[in-house]
Amino acid sequence: MILNDYRRKLEQLDFEKLYNNDFLLTWEKTGDELDAVFAVADALRHLRENNVSARIFDSGLGVSIFRDFSTRTRFSFASACNMLGLEVQDLDEGKSQIAHGETVRETANMISFMADVIGIRDDMYIGKGNAYMREVSEAVQQGNKDGILEQRPTLVNLQCDIDHPTQTMADMLHIIHYFGGIGNLKRKKLAMTWAYSPSYGKPLSVPQGVIGLMTRMGMEVVLAHPEGYEVMSEVEDIAIKNAKESGGKFMKTNSMAEAFADADIVYPKSWAPFLAMKKRTELYEENDFDGIKALEKELLTQNANHKDWECTEELMRTTKDGKALYLHCLPADISGVSCKEGEVEASVFDRYRILLYKEASFKPYIIAAMMFLSKVKNPQDLLANLGKRGQPRIQV
Amino acid sequence: MILNDYRRKLEQLDFEKLYNNDFLLTWEKTGDELDAVFAVADALRHLRENNVSARIFDSGLGVSIFRDFSTRTRFSFASACNMLGLEVQDLDEGKSQIAHGETVRETANMISFMADVIGIRDDMYIGKGNAYMREVSEAVQQGNKDGILEQRPTLVNLQCDIDHPTQTMADMLHIIHYFGGIGNLKRKKLAMTWAYSPSYGKPLSVPQGVIGLMTRMGMEVVLAHPEGYEVMSEVEDIAIKNAKESGGKFMKTNSMAEAFADADIVYPKSWAPFLAMKKRTELYEENDFDGIKALEKELLTQNANHKDWECTEELMRTTKDGKALYLHCLPADISGVSCKEGEVEASVFDRYRILLYKEASFKPYIIAAMMFLSKVKNPQDLLANLGKRGQPRIQV
Amino acid sequence: MILNDYRRKLEQLDFEKLYNNDFLLTWEKTGDELDAVFAVADALRHLRENNVSARIFDSGLGVSIFRDFSTRTRFSFASACNMLGLEVQDLDEGKSQIAHGETVRETANMISFMADVIGIRDDMYIGKGNAYMREVSEAVQQGNKDGILEQRPTLVNLQCDIDHPTQTMADMLHIIHYFGGIGNLKRKKLAMTWAYSPSYGKPLSVPQGVIGLMTRMGMEVVLAHPEGYEVMSEVEDIAIKNAKESGGKFMKTNSMAEAFADADIVYPKSWAPFLAMKKRTELYEENDFDGIKALEKELLTQNANHKDWECTEELMRTTKDGKALYLHCLPADISGVSCKEGEVEASVFDRYRILLYKEASFKPYIIAAMMFLSKVKNPQDLLANLGKRGQPRIQV
Repeated sequence: MILNDYRRKLEQLDFEKLYNNDFLLTWEKTGDELDAVFAVADALRHLRENNVSARIFDSGLGVSIFRDFSTRTRFSFASACNMLGLEVQDLDEGKSQIAHGETVRETANMISFMADVIGIRDDMYIGKGNAYMREVSEAVQQGNKDGILEQRPTLVNLQCDIDHPTQTMADMLHIIHYFGGIGNLKRKKLAMTWAYSPSYGKPLSVPQGVIGLMTRMGMEVVLAHPEGYEVMSEVEDIAIKNAKESGGKFMKTNSMAEAFADADIVYPKSWAPFLAMKKRTELYEENDFDGIKALEKELLTQNANHKDWECTEELMRTTKDGKALYLHCLPADISGVSCKEGEVEASVFDRYRILLYKEASFKPYIIAAMMFLSKVKNPQDLLANLGKRGQPRIQV
Repeated sequence: MILNDYRRKLEQLDFEKLYNNDFLLTWEKTGDELDAVFAVADALRHLRENNVSARIFDSGLGVSIFRDFSTRTRFSFASACNMLGLEVQDLDEGKSQIAHGETVRETANMISFMADVIGIRDDMYIGKGNAYMREVSEAVQQGNKDGILEQRPTLVNLQCDIDHPTQTMADMLHIIHYFGGIGNLKRKKLAMTWAYSPSYGKPLSVPQGVIGLMTRMGMEVVLAHPEGYEVMSEVEDIAIKNAKESGGKFMKTNSMAEAFADADIVYPKSWAPFLAMKKRTELYEENDFDGIKALEKELLTQNANHKDWECTEELMRTTKDGKALYLHCLPADISGVSCKEGEVEASVFDRYRILLYKEASFKPYIIAAMMFLSKVKNPQDLLANLGKRGQPRIQV
Repeated sequence: MILNDYRRKLEQLDFEKLYNNDFLLTWEKTGDELDAVFAVADALRHLRENNVSARIFDSGLGVSIFRDFSTRTRFSFASACNMLGLEVQDLDEGKSQIAHGETVRETANMISFMADVIGIRDDMYIGKGNAYMREVSEAVQQGNKDGILEQRPTLVNLQCDIDHPTQTMADMLHIIHYFGGIGNLKRKKLAMTWAYSPSYGKPLSVPQGVIGLMTRMGMEVVLAHPEGYEVMSEVEDIAIKNAKESGGKFMKTNSMAEAFADADIVYPKSWAPFLAMKKRTELYEENDFDGIKALEKELLTQNANHKDWECTEELMRTTKDGKALYLHCLPADISGVSCKEGEVEASVFDRYRILLYKEASFKPYIIAAMMFLSKVKNPQDLLANLGKRGQPRIQV
């Protein structure tokens, strides 16, 4: 039984701090803890492929709070909840408001009487999204201690202003499978590069999350972007530290060509300048809508100067054997398809389509694994028991 | 045990092609396949009436995509999913946009990682709705082959520009029960007739679906409408062919009175002219909103000329023994109740109210049966096992 | 086994009329019936605290109809449904329309083919909300008799123009636990008092529900409000009758200070004048939007005259030992926090925060208990069986 492999792997890892805990930033987790998430994600996928139910909840709610529009992550969260037996209940708060202390504490408790998990996406405002998640977490932990909530709902960060852990962990699991194991990632070159998109103003959580996670596996991670498109410097510091500890490298450049040269993996994607996003947040707090308009105009002008940052066939040919693994969190802005000029040439995207969809397919399992490890004290035994029980997911 | 009757019935039918397949148009299915849907629908209803669970999914998603407003079909789909153990997850795409190739392929995969069934309603644009369903189906079949999706989500057409199979199959099951069996339908006269409604512009899927399905049972189907209210000619061709094969008849007339005369069943309902709807679709594609406005004005004028197309007591008296079975997909435009002048006189509607609600009550079971037959390899055995297992739906 | 205590309690009560019935107004229920709801709510909470599943539905729908915005009650209903095994399906009808007979009857049946419970919030229009619930109830009872619906969906009033039974029953269960049993409530003084809020126009269901319920336990209930803020006189009559029968008192005053003096429990909360709300309903029916605007202006002016109706520290000191139990249905308008001047001083609210959240935490269990008792013939045995079965809610 292949489930015994996952059991053996888990038995070698120290991950007890995941139990009854949140998953907010990958760099708050140890290497063992991340490995445990990958192992459980693979085990859950294995169960599903063999029509074995992974339902561990007889009832219970997974509450989702999306403070930005989402289809992919919403369905991934719903899939993960459903797989484990939780029913999704959406809190529809209106998209754009910035939440305040009092309301957060109260609402967090009011929606959590029977919530086992809370998934939050809040990526619009610098300094706000991750902070909001921590407020919610503290509120429900206190509510649990005070006897208001029978259980402690644990949080999963479905994208914040700093990190996008369910995305990057899914990306990483994809890479691990593609290259045949974590061990094979040492010294692989990964280019996390900015790319042009007409829809400027995209969140920074993916590039930040990628340099914060991928530097932990001994890879050589290059962050490339035009001048002015810097990401959060705190996350760069984490990348530097990670690289040192893992025996990898973290480099920066303002040249897409340099980043692509001989790369094993490329991740070309648009994002907004961190400082501009920070300024936008401040303008929102001051309700300065003229200021926001002016800023957006400025950003569009700046953005239009960099249409040459496109993942072309020509650039792809410069990668390792011309065959770097192309990554994207989707949807991509495909030149001539979803927009006139975009992040990637259509023929490049087409060649990698199946791989891109596979990359995305890991997300529900990553989320389910995060939940599983936060709810189950002895996951190695329970996984084995689920396999033994062999309850069919669908009777056929 | 009455479930053995359904088993015996199913054992006589050849319906293996329903397995792992979509249900898009009734005329793509054989008579045996339709009979299997009716038999399973009845069996599932029998289970529920006896408080026996028909849950075959331990977990799994039923994704619904409604590209037009819906209450009845939405609840019928949700009920069917719930009965079998699937949780509904809505994809809210915005109502009026016409989807494109790239997006369809990607979105279809992104929402389907754990989807067993996808139900789609897309009836607004001629040439688009059914085509969209086929695009989604191809995308997820390919996704399954490529190892992106662990299972193949099968599609159920919840109403398109061509057919409304869950509606007409429910109508048909109602007729079968009303007249005491399929065998009794031979030579029964069914009048599918246009009727006036102030809300012009209703979809053509019901009249088309009715003439495409009801002509298969040896009935004499009359399609009646004012000049200019023609339906899709391809579906008329199918009706002609069906009637020939089943020993029935398919006739057309521009007289409501002629259609009603001596009819056993009447189905008076408003719809929009096919050619006008086709033109409207083209105008939408060209973003010609002035053209659309002009067209709508023209249609309203044309519509107002036919207020005499009403299902009155007087007309009902001309049907077989004055007692034809009155059908409607609901909601009906009832004269003096939901509008000043409408499809049907209030007293006629009132007399048939209970029967109309019963007609509608078959839809959840028809949808559940379509899903059941697309997911279960040996439905005759599984139904028997569900009966034997006798898991109570509710513990009392 | 503590569940035996609940069993013994239930065996002493006569509550068979709750079976297969709606829960619309507390004063339609006997004392035994209310006690049964409290006992089952406590038992269900006990099960959950011990990780024992209370799932009695293998499948089934809980339909929710919210004709006013809601977060708390929505999540409480969803939690209760989920706990018992029902999946929530929302009917989104648009918030503000007043429903009519024909549509109600039809829609009620169309959404109920597989609905076990229907929860409705409709509190906006005087004379409408509760009446609407009764229309829905009659429609589905008839539908069940006519063979359209396999089961009778039972209704839970999630707030109407008259009563808010799930709120006040939760409030009451909180009081019972706080004071150590129903027996200890005799002669306790409860002050249900109006309080100022900038958002004038709040529903009357809470004060009405409170005086209609709390007068049944032998308490001394004082209703206090400024002149002109009268509640529905029919409910006052019920409070008078209740107080007489229970050996308690029902008093009225226009002085907040008088109400607070020596009170054991205070419930300061804003509401709109009954007569004004009645007039507003009439204006809506006449589509007299100028009239509505004029009325709102008038109400705002009237409202602003009573900013001194605030639950202050000073007032709290006048209550029994300065320690009355402070109640609120939440969210409260907290002075200097959620608004400049509001219902309650921030320091008072803060001191009672945990207790307020606990008060709210009873609501999902109260709703679940109402459903349980309407669906289960012998709840005492079933609760014992659930305990014996010991199916874990989550496998850990």
